[in-house]
Amino acid sequence: MTQAPILVVTTGGTIDKQYFDALSEFQISDSMMGKLLQTARVAHPVRVVELLRKDSLELTDEDRALIARTVAEAPESHVVITHGTDTMTDTAAALAHIEGKTIVMCGAMQPARFAETDAPFNLGMAFGCCQSAAPGIWITMSGTVFNALQVRKDREAGRFVAG
Amino acid sequence: MTQAPILVVTTGGTIDKQYFDALSEFQISDSMMGKLLQTARVAHPVRVVELLRKDSLELTDEDRALIARTVAEAPESHVVITHGTDTMTDTAAALAHIEGKTIVMCGAMQPARFAETDAPFNLGMAFGCCQSAAPGIWITMSGTVFNALQVRKDREAGRFVAG
Amino acid sequence: MTQAPILVVTTGGTIDKQYFDALSEFQISDSMMGKLLQTARVAHPVRVVELLRKDSLELTDEDRALIARTVAEAPESHVVITHGTDTMTDTAAALAHIEGKTIVMCGAMQPARFAETDAPFNLGMAFGCCQSAAPGIWITMSGTVFNALQVRKDREAGRFVAG
Amino acid sequence: MTQAPILVVTTGGTIDKQYFDALSEFQISDSMMGKLLQTARVAHPVRVVELLRKDSLELTDEDRALIARTVAEAPESHVVITHGTDTMTDTAAALAHIEGKTIVMCGAMQPARFAETDAPFNLGMAFGCCQSAAPGIWITMSGTVFNALQVRKDREAGRFVAG
Repeated sequence: MTQAPILVVTTGGTIDKQYFDALSEFQISDSMMGKLLQTARVAHPVRVVELLRKDSLELTDEDRALIARTVAEAPESHVVITHGTDTMTDTAAALAHIEGKTIVMCGAMQPARFAETDAPFNLGMAFGCCQSAAPGIWITMSGTVFNALQVRKDREAGRFVAG
Repeated sequence: MTQAPILVVTTGGTIDKQYFDALSEFQISDSMMGKLLQTARVAHPVRVVELLRKDSLELTDEDRALIARTVAEAPESHVVITHGTDTMTDTAAALAHIEGKTIVMCGAMQPARFAETDAPFNLGMAFGCCQSAAPGIWITMSGTVFNALQVRKDREAGRFVAG
Repeated sequence: MTQAPILVVTTGGTIDKQYFDALSEFQISDSMMGKLLQTARVAHPVRVVELLRKDSLELTDEDRALIARTVAEAPESHVVITHGTDTMTDTAAALAHIEGKTIVMCGAMQPARFAETDAPFNLGMAFGCCQSAAPGIWITMSGTVFNALQVRKDREAGRFVAG
Repeated sequence: MTQAPILVVTTGGTIDKQYFDALSEFQISDSMMGKLLQTARVAHPVRVVELLRKDSLELTDEDRALIARTVAEAPESHVVITHGTDTMTDTAAALAHIEGKTIVMCGAMQPARFAETDAPFNLGMAFGCCQSAAPGIWITMSGTVFNALQVRKDREAGRFVAG
C-alpha cells in the first residue's frame, strides 16, 4: 500500500480504437490514456509509455518481448498495461518470468471514446489492484481481479472468466 | 484474490448528484450504481444496498452507526462504500472496529451523470482494491489507494492527500 | 438559406451549469458554447458573445435591455441566444421590437456537461431554424420550433408547449 | 412553422455505427434514433422508420428508390432522413422529384455512440430546418443548412461545403 510511482504501458487494443470517417473504418489511434487519467483526476505519480498501437491479434513474439523488456527494465515495481483483450493472456504468459513486480493488465470491450465504455472502470481496477496486490500478474476485467495465468476470454459472452 | 461476492453500499454524495430543472438545483437522487456497474460490464457477483441519499456533511452519528451495522452484519467480507468526500474519513473511523473485512470507500469530485466524471475510475479502483488488499479500511480517490485512517481531503486542491 | 454569419449570445441558464465540489453546489460557469460548437464540427461563420452568466429567474430589466441592445446593434441578421428556460419567453417579449432579424432562443433542461443532455440537440435546432425561418423570434425546445410569443414552459411536465 | 408530425427515416451511415468486440470491427447496428430523441427530450409528434442499415457507399439504386417511395407515400410533409455522408447528395438527387415536402438529410462524422459526436447537433439542425424551411431538399451538416443539390462533402477537410 505504497505511493510508489506507477508505470503505465499502452499497447493498443479496443480501448484506444478511434473511428476515421474518411476511411469509414475503425483503427487504433493516439492513446486515450492521458484523457482517462485527467478525467479520473489522478494525482498519483505516473509515467506513461505509449509503446505499441496494435490490435492484440496482430501482436508478434517480438512485440511481447518488447513489452516484457520495458516492464522488466523499468524502475517502477507497480505496472499497469492496457492491451487488446483477445491475446491478453498470451502476453501475460510472456511476462510471467518477471519477479518482484505487481503487473496488472486491462483493456476494454467498448472503446474509451464511446459514451458507454468499460475503459475507465477497468483502468481504475488496475490502479487499485496494482497498489494492493502481491507481486505477480493480474488481469482486471468484467469487475474481477483475475490471476492472469488462470483466466480466459469468453468471446461469445463478451467477458473474462476464471479457468 | 477471491471471487467472493462484493457488497456495495451507497450512501449519497456528489457521485449520485442529479440536476432538477424544476427546482433549479442539484440534489442527490436515485443512485447511479446500477448504471455504473452495467456500463463497466461487471459480471462479478455483487449485492447493492442503497442505504442513504445524503450529502456527507449531513450525515449523523446514527447514519454512521447504520452504515457500520450494515457492513458488520453482512455476510460479505469484501465491501465497497460510495460516500460524499467531505466526511469520508469520519465514516471510515466509525468502521475501524470491524475486523476481518476489506472495506473500500470511494466517491467522486464530479457527479457520475457528468460526461467528464471521476466516478467510474474511482469505483473501479475500489473494486480492484477490495479484491486485492488486506482486511482493513481503504479509500480510493485521486488515483491512489490510501489507508483510510491516514488520509485527508484537500478541499482547495480538490483531491485526497496522505497524512 | 444563406451562409451569412450567425451571432451566438450566451446568457447563462441550466445549459451552462457546472458543479463545484468545494461548495457542494451547482452554479453557472464559463459557457460550454465553444465545446458544443467544436464537438458539432461547426464550420459555419459564427461570432460568440458570452454576455451574461445568470439563472434566468435572476435576470433584470436591465439585463433584458442589454440583450436586446446587443442583438439589435449587431451586424448579423441571424441570431442564436442560449438562455435559462424559466423566463425565456419574457426575454423574447423584450426582443419583439427588433425587425429584420431571425432570432432563435434555446436552452436545456439538463446541463450541457451531463452525459445525457438536450443541449446539443436544442442548439442544433436553433442553428437550423435561424438559417431557415423568416425574421421573427423563435424558441427551439422539446423538439419543436415555437413562435416565441406563443409558447410557455410547462414546469411539471418539464417541456415547452404551444399556447 | 407548424406542429405537424415529422417522419424520421434512418438508412444507416456513420451515425449508427457500433463497435463489435467479438469481430474487432465497426458495423452499423440498431439505430441510435430512439436514444437520441429521448435524450433530446423531443415531445414533438414523430414517426420513426428504420428503413436501411447500410454504409452509404453500399446503397444501390433500388435502395434509393425505396427511400424515395417511402418519403413520397408518407402522410407527413416534414421529413428527416439520417444517412451516411459519402453519398448523401446522390440520394438527395433521387428525392428531387418529390414536391410539397420539406425533406432534410443529415448524418454524422463521428458515431452517435461516441462521447464526442456531432450526431445530436446535426439531428437537431434537421428538426429545426424541417419545421422552418420551404419545401425542398436540405442537408444540415457542419453547422450549415445547405441546399442539398448544391453541396458536396470535402472528405479531406471532414466537412460539407457549398458548391
